[in-house]
Amino acid sequence: MSGVDEVGDRYVVGVDYGTLSGRALVVRVRDGAELGTAVHEYRNAVISSALPDGGTPLPPDWALQDPQDYRDVLRYAVPAAVTAAGVDPNDVVGIGVDFTACTVLPTLADGTPLCEVPELRQRPHSWVKLWKHHAAQPHADRINALAHERGEPWIGRYGGKISAEWQFAKGLQLLEEDPEVYRRAERFVEAADWIVWQLCGVETRNVCTAGYKGILQDGRYPSADYLTALNPDFGDFVAKLDGPLMPLGGKAGELTAQAAAWTGLPQGIAVAVGNVDAHVTAASAQALAPGRLVAIMGTSTCHVVNGAHPAEVAGMCGVVDGGISAGAWGYEAGQSGVGDIFGWFVEHAAPAEFASHERLTELAAAQPVGAHGLVALDWWNGNRSLLVNHDLSGMIVGLTLATRPEDIYRALLEATAYGTRMIIEAFVAAGVTVDDLVIAGGLTSNKLLMQIYADVTNRPLGIIGSAQGPALGSAIHAAVAAGAYPSIHEASEAMGRVSAAVYRPDPDRVRAYDALYAEYRTLHDHFGRGANDVMLRLRAIRNAAAESTAATNENALEVVA
Amino acid sequence: MSGVDEVGDRYVVGVDYGTLSGRALVVRVRDGAELGTAVHEYRNAVISSALPDGGTPLPPDWALQDPQDYRDVLRYAVPAAVTAAGVDPNDVVGIGVDFTACTVLPTLADGTPLCEVPELRQRPHSWVKLWKHHAAQPHADRINALAHERGEPWIGRYGGKISAEWQFAKGLQLLEEDPEVYRRAERFVEAADWIVWQLCGVETRNVCTAGYKGILQDGRYPSADYLTALNPDFGDFVAKLDGPLMPLGGKAGELTAQAAAWTGLPQGIAVAVGNVDAHVTAASAQALAPGRLVAIMGTSTCHVVNGAHPAEVAGMCGVVDGGISAGAWGYEAGQSGVGDIFGWFVEHAAPAEFASHERLTELAAAQPVGAHGLVALDWWNGNRSLLVNHDLSGMIVGLTLATRPEDIYRALLEATAYGTRMIIEAFVAAGVTVDDLVIAGGLTSNKLLMQIYADVTNRPLGIIGSAQGPALGSAIHAAVAAGAYPSIHEASEAMGRVSAAVYRPDPDRVRAYDALYAEYRTLHDHFGRGANDVMLRLRAIRNAAAESTAATNENALEVVA
Repeated sequence: MSGVDEVGDRYVVGVDYGTLSGRALVVRVRDGAELGTAVHEYRNAVISSALPDGGTPLPPDWALQDPQDYRDVLRYAVPAAVTAAGVDPNDVVGIGVDFTACTVLPTLADGTPLCEVPELRQRPHSWVKLWKHHAAQPHADRINALAHERGEPWIGRYGGKISAEWQFAKGLQLLEEDPEVYRRAERFVEAADWIVWQLCGVETRNVCTAGYKGILQDGRYPSADYLTALNPDFGDFVAKLDGPLMPLGGKAGELTAQAAAWTGLPQGIAVAVGNVDAHVTAASAQALAPGRLVAIMGTSTCHVVNGAHPAEVAGMCGVVDGGISAGAWGYEAGQSGVGDIFGWFVEHAAPAEFASHERLTELAAAQPVGAHGLVALDWWNGNRSLLVNHDLSGMIVGLTLATRPEDIYRALLEATAYGTRMIIEAFVAAGVTVDDLVIAGGLTSNKLLMQIYADVTNRPLGIIGSAQGPALGSAIHAAVAAGAYPSIHEASEAMGRVSAAVYRPDPDRVRAYDALYAEYRTLHDHFGRGANDVMLRLRAIRNAAAESTAATNENALEVVA
Repeated sequence: MSGVDEVGDRYVVGVDYGTLSGRALVVRVRDGAELGTAVHEYRNAVISSALPDGGTPLPPDWALQDPQDYRDVLRYAVPAAVTAAGVDPNDVVGIGVDFTACTVLPTLADGTPLCEVPELRQRPHSWVKLWKHHAAQPHADRINALAHERGEPWIGRYGGKISAEWQFAKGLQLLEEDPEVYRRAERFVEAADWIVWQLCGVETRNVCTAGYKGILQDGRYPSADYLTALNPDFGDFVAKLDGPLMPLGGKAGELTAQAAAWTGLPQGIAVAVGNVDAHVTAASAQALAPGRLVAIMGTSTCHVVNGAHPAEVAGMCGVVDGGISAGAWGYEAGQSGVGDIFGWFVEHAAPAEFASHERLTELAAAQPVGAHGLVALDWWNGNRSLLVNHDLSGMIVGLTLATRPEDIYRALLEATAYGTRMIIEAFVAAGVTVDDLVIAGGLTSNKLLMQIYADVTNRPLGIIGSAQGPALGSAIHAAVAAGAYPSIHEASEAMGRVSAAVYRPDPDRVRAYDALYAEYRTLHDHFGRGANDVMLRLRAIRNAAAESTAATNENALEVVA
């Protein structure tokens, strides 16, 4: 793939902001060759128990980040990647970024994060709320109930439910739990757009996050009337969001002198409009054609697929005109816990001699389908699609004294595949074609997992040809922003890569999985659609108990083992 | 407790046959003082994957034992206990035994186990079937269906269901899976009665196992007519069971010369009628009065309680006239997995630094009720009461990425307490009083577990005053058989001991547990009473997959990690 550089070759840098680190990738414009990469781990990672340096404790389900960690990716990872690539920085013509979403922060009018305003630094609501901040479920519930009550036209575009992870839920939580920080927030901005702002000094809003994570449909946000009905003081929320709306692949601005100093790149090069890690990957996976679903599988999974027409898919994250690439309707769905669940198992539920993914996978691969006798619901981190409820939780059924660690591990792999199948079936039922899958992300290296996905979904599975799908996608967008290609389609054709149909479904295993999937589906609907809301009640009991502990610890046992 | 021996003191030996070992205990007749004990571990333990010494492989759910291990307890543990006690063997006046049940074996007319007949040794059905042999569920299902269809009068005495663990289910499986071994079985005898037979050379049948584990009610076994309807060749089954029926505390016979040589005890001393580990413990726990429920908590839990009148309790194991002590109706219920589940968790589901009961208990005890957000169904080893189905399996709901090992461990402790509460409520609903609980067995040392049981059941909890409840109970029965006391009641009064109400329910925790128990009960009924038989289907899929593996392994993935 990385042939020899030629005289006159130009390069772009893609920067992928993940949950725990940011990665920079230097890519050749001509053919997408990946020449050098570097990673910077966030110093404060995910802030979930207390603010940094012994600061304010946080309630359950909170997940914050530190914006300085994002700047540090530009300062450390970008120059390191350029050095690793061995290219002359003066040959770099553009930079693009993608980000987790909805990851969002309140800032002053000049973009200064409120958590960097000294008197607000110990206020949890002044920090970046990471995508997996799940403490705004009650706010999301009210947003949805009122939207249905009033018949808001946009709610169908989001599968009937706005997620607790998204801008309006997080914004409403901010208003109601810390009105002063809400008032001080002159801007409320996706981290994707904020980092672009840091790069080029221009505030922009990309159509992707505005559509999927905000509620921008047909050029409009929800009405002030609706927002005021939600909370009398929420009517001005849209004013904090609104900004110059830019299409994907557009040029947000040019690299400032300060950002040039951080990155070592030439001042004035093109800075692409921000984007989301999943959506940008459709370009690097050459999956912009309708019917080819891209699943980016990491700690969580995001599914994106283009369709020729708009459709309302129950439980889907959203459909946005041009949300993946101009000229198509981009559909998004997601599973809020995937690799995170496997990681949880290895860290917290596997005996020492089994505590590695490799060992568990090897043992699990030796089993025929169904031999472990288990079915799990993969909701350790809630359910993003189709149920859109982050108070749901995980369950396993079928446990016996003969159950072994690899049995549970395999059941967890399978549960996430069932979750993906639920999503595919919802798309198909709504008229959105899904012919095959392309998998990207860190989990592609697990061959057992990939084969399970092919067998469970009964569809051929392609694998992206890059280990850095999002960063490559951002580089592709940078190339378009720099004018090297007329559109993302041409750039994707030249710079992206995929191996199609690497895993094919096996008819016997497909049949065996059909029976297990039927069990999953029954449990999914029973626990997820109101027949037994035990998960929601257990969550409420847990949260109340945690609060009582913080207060008095009065309900704990006064015995020792 | 163990005061000084006096001139003329006499002693008895109680032998308790457990799942993995047998224990002998030397006890002073006058006051029950425990003077010496010894344990012999069974060489072949539980035989569940293949017959010993590389023999015939076993299907899932099988659990066999080797009768030679039982004789070895007499040969090694009894003399060692007498030596440890420092008493003159000539002052020992009786020996009594208790056993797990239903643990049952086919023998020749002289008591020779069929697995010791050379040409039958590689036939799995010739071996002892341990109580937790769970492969006869289909046979139990037919026994129950036909009993209800024909309106058999005895079925109500067993809560409406005969367990797959019991004599008739195990016998029918024997007949249908190995008719030749069935034909060769001149006797089909509880291990409790078989070991007594080895001690005194006289075949007897104790009223306890005949009533609870056989189907002897009002002096009669099921009719030949019923048995023939079950299977035309099953009509002679009762002839293999029938024998001189003896009340508890009776004298079965006198120690033979051979058994005297094994044990080092005097030939001719009294050998008590056999008994069950749980039932015999009611005597040592001084819990013979109606309303005091004894829970013997070890790998599994057995509950026994006397009542003044017969009642039919749905899902109960059985009610037997004189089944615990003469003059009362003895009720039995049980949970087929308790300590086994906690042990499974520590061995197969806990990371290294948490893999001890002490560590997990210490961490779990620090939580307020409900803080872990979990509810489990404690059916890792099936459900004995109230559902009487060993194809049911365990489940956990409420798992999140924040769930820690001690959370699941505590949820498992609690789940078994909820299972006990289900049983108590069934007794009470049927008019059988349960005023307080006395706990015996190995799990009494876990103070957190004991307090959870008091809080969940909202009843005071006493603790037996002996670490060897069953062996002490057998010694009490031996003392009665030797004529030292006129009945078990007087012997229990003199030789048993209990600390009443050591743990008292805390009103706040009782209230908190009421909410969680309501969730357990809903899940219990949903998964256990037919609304969703997913557990039974998963078991069938598992068993079929295991068979296909054994055959061809055709359905396994051909991928490596």
